[in-house]
Amino acid sequence: MVTYVSPSTGLTVRAVLFDVFGTVVDWRSGITAAVRSFASGHGLELDPSAFADSWRGRYQPAMRQVRSGGRPYVSLDVLHRENLEDVLRELGLDPGAFDPAELDRLARAWHFLPPWPDSVAGIAAIKREYIVGPLSNGNTSLLLDMAKAAGLPWDLILGSDASRAYKPDPEAYLRPIALLGLEPGEVMLAAAHPADLAAARHVGLATAFIARPLEHGPGASSGAAAGTADWDLAAGSITEIADRL
Amino acid sequence: MVTYVSPSTGLTVRAVLFDVFGTVVDWRSGITAAVRSFASGHGLELDPSAFADSWRGRYQPAMRQVRSGGRPYVSLDVLHRENLEDVLRELGLDPGAFDPAELDRLARAWHFLPPWPDSVAGIAAIKREYIVGPLSNGNTSLLLDMAKAAGLPWDLILGSDASRAYKPDPEAYLRPIALLGLEPGEVMLAAAHPADLAAARHVGLATAFIARPLEHGPGASSGAAAGTADWDLAAGSITEIADRL
Repeated sequence: MVTYVSPSTGLTVRAVLFDVFGTVVDWRSGITAAVRSFASGHGLELDPSAFADSWRGRYQPAMRQVRSGGRPYVSLDVLHRENLEDVLRELGLDPGAFDPAELDRLARAWHFLPPWPDSVAGIAAIKREYIVGPLSNGNTSLLLDMAKAAGLPWDLILGSDASRAYKPDPEAYLRPIALLGLEPGEVMLAAAHPADLAAARHVGLATAFIARPLEHGPGASSGAAAGTADWDLAAGSITEIADRL
Repeated sequence: MVTYVSPSTGLTVRAVLFDVFGTVVDWRSGITAAVRSFASGHGLELDPSAFADSWRGRYQPAMRQVRSGGRPYVSLDVLHRENLEDVLRELGLDPGAFDPAELDRLARAWHFLPPWPDSVAGIAAIKREYIVGPLSNGNTSLLLDMAKAAGLPWDLILGSDASRAYKPDPEAYLRPIALLGLEPGEVMLAAAHPADLAAARHVGLATAFIARPLEHGPGASSGAAAGTADWDLAAGSITEIADRL
């Protein structure tokens, strides 16, 4: 095992934890494909990508209710399933008109998202010298299904249901790190989202920005400007992060 | 992924979780070697195997205090470190005479125990079709260090500090299973210790007994009679369990 000492912050990194949706896996392609298959099975005329965007768009507001204390912790599986019904209603469709088991299955598409092309090789390379794991708002069973299906070689999986907190709540970063027996400064968060990285840095983590210009589809705003913020590392792929650690 | 349906209980198994100390790793050889090195460095005349047995012997009484509510949850790392001082005192040695960092290091020998010869291959074989993980009283960082050093290919690691309960407390089995999103009957506990298996069965798990006649050293009582109890499976190695699943 080696450590990485950040030239900018002086932090000594022993573990690299990853945001998952958008950073490790391409949620939009995976959800679009699942929605396309669902729509086709029911003869529904809808735009699967727009459906995926609308579904994902309800993610932050739903978690905000939990973070604010307005609602006790419920898992992301529960939120995804509820939000699916909202998206259907928005399109003028009655969720009650579908077999609930089929909607459960569609919501479980979030468990089986495809990794970006560099994710498996990049995580495997980093794992040789560092602890690797997800640091995601996904629940443990979601992250476990995803890891087994996509071949993500995590050392361990601690979902948001283990910490019972959603990022960017500080506890969502600090509780898994306590289970690792590490100090926050010994952990690097790798993520494609500046708000996530900023919250992690605020509680003492090292940070690596990974640009994922295709997260929201071709032609969407790329967020590449975030690469100019002062993160410990910034790169275009997980394999590039592996090379630089 | 396949499932295993137990002919005796009818339970359908999707995950196999393992007791660790004695079942997956040979704690006695590992601790004996660490104690021998410590004793040699200090010119101490002591029996390293007897020291290991005495240290391990304090494991259940120390956890019992937590299980009974007589003491708030503290991790096994804390208990191992405290028990080390007790063993030294029992031998007429003053723990205060040693560098605390050196005692910390000796206590961390529990993080780096050698696997039994069949453990890595057996777990890897089961992993192809089932979820695999430890279900141990060890804390997450202990199990993580052990997995990385020994090459144990767990899908995930949920230590007793994630559930904040020690086996055979029912919550020590039920909380990790809830995080897996599974029912107790979908999980098989594999263990070398009948009391552990009996407690797991009591809360609904499937059970696999693995005989480890050398756990307490050559010549010690082997516990092989436990193989005659009515577990879902009973075998002499993890590879044999893999063949039978």
